[in-house]
Amino acid sequence: MADKTEAIARFIKQEFPQTRVEVDAVGERSARVSQAVDESDLRPGGTVSGPTLMALADVALYVALLGEIGIVPLAVTTSLTINFLRKPEASKRVIGECQLMKVGKTLAVGEVSLYSEGMDDPVAHVVGTYSIPPAHLR
Amino acid sequence: MADKTEAIARFIKQEFPQTRVEVDAVGERSARVSQAVDESDLRPGGTVSGPTLMALADVALYVALLGEIGIVPLAVTTSLTINFLRKPEASKRVIGECQLMKVGKTLAVGEVSLYSEGMDDPVAHVVGTYSIPPAHLR
Amino acid sequence: MADKTEAIARFIKQEFPQTRVEVDAVGERSARVSQAVDESDLRPGGTVSGPTLMALADVALYVALLGEIGIVPLAVTTSLTINFLRKPEASKRVIGECQLMKVGKTLAVGEVSLYSEGMDDPVAHVVGTYSIPPAHLR
Amino acid sequence: MADKTEAIARFIKQEFPQTRVEVDAVGERSARVSQAVDESDLRPGGTVSGPTLMALADVALYVALLGEIGIVPLAVTTSLTINFLRKPEASKRVIGECQLMKVGKTLAVGEVSLYSEGMDDPVAHVVGTYSIPPAHLR
Repeated sequence: MADKTEAIARFIKQEFPQTRVEVDAVGERSARVSQAVDESDLRPGGTVSGPTLMALADVALYVALLGEIGIVPLAVTTSLTINFLRKPEASKRVIGECQLMKVGKTLAVGEVSLYSEGMDDPVAHVVGTYSIPPAHLR
Repeated sequence: MADKTEAIARFIKQEFPQTRVEVDAVGERSARVSQAVDESDLRPGGTVSGPTLMALADVALYVALLGEIGIVPLAVTTSLTINFLRKPEASKRVIGECQLMKVGKTLAVGEVSLYSEGMDDPVAHVVGTYSIPPAHLR
Repeated sequence: MADKTEAIARFIKQEFPQTRVEVDAVGERSARVSQAVDESDLRPGGTVSGPTLMALADVALYVALLGEIGIVPLAVTTSLTINFLRKPEASKRVIGECQLMKVGKTLAVGEVSLYSEGMDDPVAHVVGTYSIPPAHLR
Repeated sequence: MADKTEAIARFIKQEFPQTRVEVDAVGERSARVSQAVDESDLRPGGTVSGPTLMALADVALYVALLGEIGIVPLAVTTSLTINFLRKPEASKRVIGECQLMKVGKTLAVGEVSLYSEGMDDPVAHVVGTYSIPPAHLR
């Protein structure tokens, strides 16, 4: 499992050099990613921007999916629904815990709970779908 | 807890006499409801219709919410997102397990996993939001 | 166009004998369907139930899609997001106006505005996705 | 109308100094915003990132809402559903056309179609909801 996490973390760094998201763990149909919050993520009132949370959730889904279908750079997000639940803490890392609910032949569906590090209640919740390449192209 | 479940089950029966959904349990920010599948729920190919699943999820959210804010007939669904994951079994009850993620001053958000009874993998997943009445009207 | 509408209306009646939805028009990546509201659709307060609206939207999407890919009974709804906007009128037909935004190789996406007949403002809005069969199976 | 657009554009620049989104027009329950695509928005394959599109749509909704309720910095996004429809062009501005469907007492709902400049078909579609402050706080 540690090897899988490492390989996917390396792939994300190479493929998306501009991302600040870190891959913490890749498990059984699941993944945990996180990101330090910096100035560019903040919004008036000292909160973390919606797009920062959405981007984190998108990576969490992608990482969990790569853990299932292998490292193939062909999966694309087809939809994403986010509900903002609580104000994130400006001074804490944001964490995304993803659980895949389905990995089908052409479509994967997963959910991500987003947290400010150390907090019990989620700051946002995401459901996302990915279009996955046919098996012979993976 | 059993008393709360019973009181809410009675309310649902009175308020929605036409529903076939049964309230199985109301817990901490959570609820479990279920429904027998009959002819009117079926679709070609022996599957359970989307609207049947959506209606069940909607009741699950409503019941979990009543468990938190008390039996006040003023909460209304404002949005609902469903992802269909697997074909439900025509011959099995459908079950909805709801977990509320937020119960705020004016808005509640929850998710529901829907199952065919006895199956491990969900047949559908719902995220719904409810508008809740201000505290002085409850 | 009238022929296409008629053929699809006939197919819907055959395939879904229990539906009360009527196919009014099938156009360019679009469709209009409607339904009389009866006792079973009503909810306390004299409003039309959410599941009735969702079911109507689902048929609107399906009908618009059949208008594009031909009458093939293999397309299945993969997701549906509904926002409830206003209280529908208990005494008026509900109408669904669907516009497809994408008809791809494996996925179609469309939106549906739902109205109480004769009203200007929509009572609900739906975005739905359909998984469509590969071309050689249609 | 031009004055309203200008006032809101100025507010957005002040409140969100880091945004690159430009407010092009604010109309009747509607708004048009756009953004040049730069290196930081691109993804492998020469496409525009999902978070860039989501952020643009979020601003479009916010701007349209400010056009209705006045410039009050208290509205917050509560949910956002995006469907990705086509690959955006890396070399073109992205444009967001927002139409509000409801501006209620506590909740607003709108949709945004996102385009690559000069293209007919949308690259993505968003439905978003905003929680709006009670009238006496505006």
